[in-house]
Amino acid sequence: MDYRRTHLCNALRKKDIGSIVTLSGWVHRRRDHGGLLFIDLRDRFGLTQLIFDSEISKKAHEEACKLRSEWVISVKGKVRARGEGLENPKLETGTIEIAVTECAILSSAKTPPFSICDDSTETSEEIRLKHRYLDIRRVEIASKLVMRHKVLMATRTFLDREGFLEVNTPILGRSTPEGARDYLVPSRVYPGNFYALPQSPQIFKQLLMVGGLDRYFQIAPCFRDEDLRSDRQTEFTQIDIEMSFEYPEAIAGLINRYLKAVFKKCLNYTVPEEIPTMTYHDCIENYGTDRPDLRFGMPLVRVDEIVRNSDFTVFKEQLHTGGCVKALCVRGGADISRKEIERYTEFVEKFGLRGLGWMKKQEDGLASNIVKFFSKDQQQALEDKLNAKKGDLLFFAAAHETLVNQSLDHLRRLIAKDRKLINPDSYTFLWVTDFPLFEWDEKEGRLQSTHHPFTMPHPDDIELLTTDPLKVRSNAYDIVINGYELGGGSQRIHDYRIQEQVFEALKLDPQEVSQKFGFFTTALQYGTPPHLGIALGFDRLIMLLSKTENIRDVIAFPKTQKASDLMMQCPSSVHPGQLDELEITTSPKEITWI
Amino acid sequence: MDYRRTHLCNALRKKDIGSIVTLSGWVHRRRDHGGLLFIDLRDRFGLTQLIFDSEISKKAHEEACKLRSEWVISVKGKVRARGEGLENPKLETGTIEIAVTECAILSSAKTPPFSICDDSTETSEEIRLKHRYLDIRRVEIASKLVMRHKVLMATRTFLDREGFLEVNTPILGRSTPEGARDYLVPSRVYPGNFYALPQSPQIFKQLLMVGGLDRYFQIAPCFRDEDLRSDRQTEFTQIDIEMSFEYPEAIAGLINRYLKAVFKKCLNYTVPEEIPTMTYHDCIENYGTDRPDLRFGMPLVRVDEIVRNSDFTVFKEQLHTGGCVKALCVRGGADISRKEIERYTEFVEKFGLRGLGWMKKQEDGLASNIVKFFSKDQQQALEDKLNAKKGDLLFFAAAHETLVNQSLDHLRRLIAKDRKLINPDSYTFLWVTDFPLFEWDEKEGRLQSTHHPFTMPHPDDIELLTTDPLKVRSNAYDIVINGYELGGGSQRIHDYRIQEQVFEALKLDPQEVSQKFGFFTTALQYGTPPHLGIALGFDRLIMLLSKTENIRDVIAFPKTQKASDLMMQCPSSVHPGQLDELEITTSPKEITWI
Repeated sequence: MDYRRTHLCNALRKKDIGSIVTLSGWVHRRRDHGGLLFIDLRDRFGLTQLIFDSEISKKAHEEACKLRSEWVISVKGKVRARGEGLENPKLETGTIEIAVTECAILSSAKTPPFSICDDSTETSEEIRLKHRYLDIRRVEIASKLVMRHKVLMATRTFLDREGFLEVNTPILGRSTPEGARDYLVPSRVYPGNFYALPQSPQIFKQLLMVGGLDRYFQIAPCFRDEDLRSDRQTEFTQIDIEMSFEYPEAIAGLINRYLKAVFKKCLNYTVPEEIPTMTYHDCIENYGTDRPDLRFGMPLVRVDEIVRNSDFTVFKEQLHTGGCVKALCVRGGADISRKEIERYTEFVEKFGLRGLGWMKKQEDGLASNIVKFFSKDQQQALEDKLNAKKGDLLFFAAAHETLVNQSLDHLRRLIAKDRKLINPDSYTFLWVTDFPLFEWDEKEGRLQSTHHPFTMPHPDDIELLTTDPLKVRSNAYDIVINGYELGGGSQRIHDYRIQEQVFEALKLDPQEVSQKFGFFTTALQYGTPPHLGIALGFDRLIMLLSKTENIRDVIAFPKTQKASDLMMQCPSSVHPGQLDELEITTSPKEITWI
Repeated sequence: MDYRRTHLCNALRKKDIGSIVTLSGWVHRRRDHGGLLFIDLRDRFGLTQLIFDSEISKKAHEEACKLRSEWVISVKGKVRARGEGLENPKLETGTIEIAVTECAILSSAKTPPFSICDDSTETSEEIRLKHRYLDIRRVEIASKLVMRHKVLMATRTFLDREGFLEVNTPILGRSTPEGARDYLVPSRVYPGNFYALPQSPQIFKQLLMVGGLDRYFQIAPCFRDEDLRSDRQTEFTQIDIEMSFEYPEAIAGLINRYLKAVFKKCLNYTVPEEIPTMTYHDCIENYGTDRPDLRFGMPLVRVDEIVRNSDFTVFKEQLHTGGCVKALCVRGGADISRKEIERYTEFVEKFGLRGLGWMKKQEDGLASNIVKFFSKDQQQALEDKLNAKKGDLLFFAAAHETLVNQSLDHLRRLIAKDRKLINPDSYTFLWVTDFPLFEWDEKEGRLQSTHHPFTMPHPDDIELLTTDPLKVRSNAYDIVINGYELGGGSQRIHDYRIQEQVFEALKLDPQEVSQKFGFFTTALQYGTPPHLGIALGFDRLIMLLSKTENIRDVIAFPKTQKASDLMMQCPSSVHPGQLDELEITTSPKEITWI
């Protein structure tokens, strides 16, 4: 039987009644009524009900009796209306069915280890990853891969129209001393030497600007050999953009237009005309993080000056040793029980906070076991500063700045989740600017680049590079959506002398820098245009658009948090001859697979 | 000065005369006439002539006097008509010039190691690759990267409209026993174990069909750690396509439409409505190769039966030992000198042929030092068979089939080149079908897949798999343009039992197969649709469209034939700590860089 389809499984409607059609797909569900057998035929587009009636075709009915879940078949038959009361309004094709006259079995199928059709089945993610080719058949995963395709197309079409050229940069590159851990690739031609997989195409895109390409983009595979958080993959994708002869506002305008286009096209969601901007300093001050989730309020409020003269020694001690006291106000939170408050206290203690102060706003003022340490005026000042209304709950944290910010940021988000303050269908967008160029790395005892070493210092702060580098602002910017950093970028250094000053401030070994980045600082000396760019996390964007917090849902063949592929069982040992050719020695550790 | 441009360097025309504009770019050429200084300002879009007149702006003129080649500047000025007789019709902006009133130097530049503006300068490719960021400024390279972008866009738009989903498959995969040499990536989490970079996404795309995605494509980076021919790169790109529930004619139709679309869009070239098909057997018989260049004729003609009874023992001996005799007819080739014939003879001897027979067709029949060994009838038969006309030259090769075919294929192409038989602006397209499923690997003493082990055997030939595997035809097809194999594909095996038979016929170690491909044969058992696909060499396509034979011209940052990057100087030694973390031992061999 010719298995070519006249229609996909979501295509047929009432107007097609009477047509002779050929459909092919998977047996989704099956109901046997003796001489009458119903099958829901599935492809990635939808479902169509087939009816095998022994009175219409004995042969087809006999064939159909053999069918089990997930067998692949092709059928020919006549479209007919479903009987009265048998229509299924939930199904696009719910008004019709196919009376099958011919049926060919294209493939049988073993019983799958989990159900494709029943989403309520709880299956461990490991089992689903091991049989990823089955998991992909589920609407939940397939729809996200379709979304990914749509965004890929929309992104490229948008950037093409904006005059950007897509350029593929190498995957086999050079290991660089800065940043995360590189994946290495041994060279056979030059034994003992290695390529590195790119953590990002940063240097290449800047070289393309030196090369005069003007506007570049790439949807680029990137690699970091890091121990993974649950929302990261060792192999990920970024939308990489760079342009010449522009200022940062051009990037902001571009990305605003891009987000508008892609949210509209893929989700029919209207991104506001203007995306607000907040400085790094204000983000940290008001939300404790440089990527605040603005879908809800509950900002952090500094109360140092109010509590400094109170009798509460816990707060006063922190202030005397250079710490701070911040509070947040949970609207209507007075219904939070002591037990829940204890849970929140334990939660912040995990970050190192010694405890959590709290006060409830009642009819007649604030109440709690610490209120007594504060004068009436101080209590009133707290109420005013936090705009506390009857029924609200205030939480207080006192410690050094970083710890207070980190704890209250997490607490704020936990409370928002617990109290369902977040509309899951809404998105809030924010640009964060004026990052510091460097941050202090306690462990290494030296400065680190907040973004990367190619970020342009603020022109007014160049002199601080040698005198007070932690004060130097950068021309960098992040775009934050719903509390996730979707991406970041900066104006780049296009003067090699400033680039060398930055390498110096980072205390990178000059010989190593010259050996590894020498070609780049040389390139900057051959006529470099002012240039700037951004990189957006593509997987993250798909997660936001498809409303999942599991990055593995938006990647066709993802890896586990241990960077292994459960389906292919990789990494794996290789043939000793392969290692001999590369002149490398190692002893393989056995891996146990599920 | 605000360096944002009002116009690109190819934009201004007569209608803009009088406008105040800002342009930014590179100093391309400079002519100093004292108080008057001319500069051609360049960006990737074109050139605009700037005039610095000390009487218009003394300051701008002073600034301009400092300028040298490749400095980056931004200028503001008034568009004016060029003086009479000073227009440059070769330049899009040749009717106007800018009288500069303000000039800012954005970057100075060292003297480049080769000229950007003068294409006639002969620079070694090594020097150009070392400074690739400068090479990219040359129109010759930049235009090919622009072409590449256009084809990327056109390809995706086309395939999206045809219902294909772009899916990104992993770069970190599993090393497989078949095919070329893998690039390996050591795992840190599982020391002694390795990922492999994909030689192609073959298995992934088939799994996506098992997963029901229906139609997949990807413009995929692929990797082969092989010693390179000049037209190959160790890291290359392929357009990878797979579809379900179709027959091979669907792929042919799709690719015909694709080539039509992309040649029209990117080159305004009309691909014929129908692309002809030739079987593998006919290709080899008539052209000695499975990728014949059909831009010219000169087919190989088998003359076994004519020469078998001649007195020429050289031919007869070959025929008696299972060889063959083929000839080709060079139209008007009688003007080829003895010396040139000697050169051709030496050329074919490199392939192992013992010599080359030749005959010239003159007024009164054939003439050469071997004609005497052939009877008048035999001579006439040769003339007829080769359709020899007065002034033609015939070449003869006698040896075993493979050697005759290989030598005459190369000879045919060399003669076509020498005699300028090829119109460089024309393209000929050909589908090659009916490949043998296997070929015999002399070195390994076993069968090899002609394409790859997932290719479907012809349904009629399944039984030959065990009895006479070399006779099994495959459902594979190649698309050939101008003598280059642009790509190939096949119907895939969707029945795991046939897949296992093919692995068996290939004499792959069953345990290794089960260990490395077990997950794949298992996947085939869970309901696999009939599926088929193709992969097109993307770099090759850009080479064809941009008419270069150097693959490095169409890749932004290419590697040398030794798989090294002369610009970044990679591969390179890495920090010993990196190797410790991976638990691998090796001793780096020093590399000398230019």
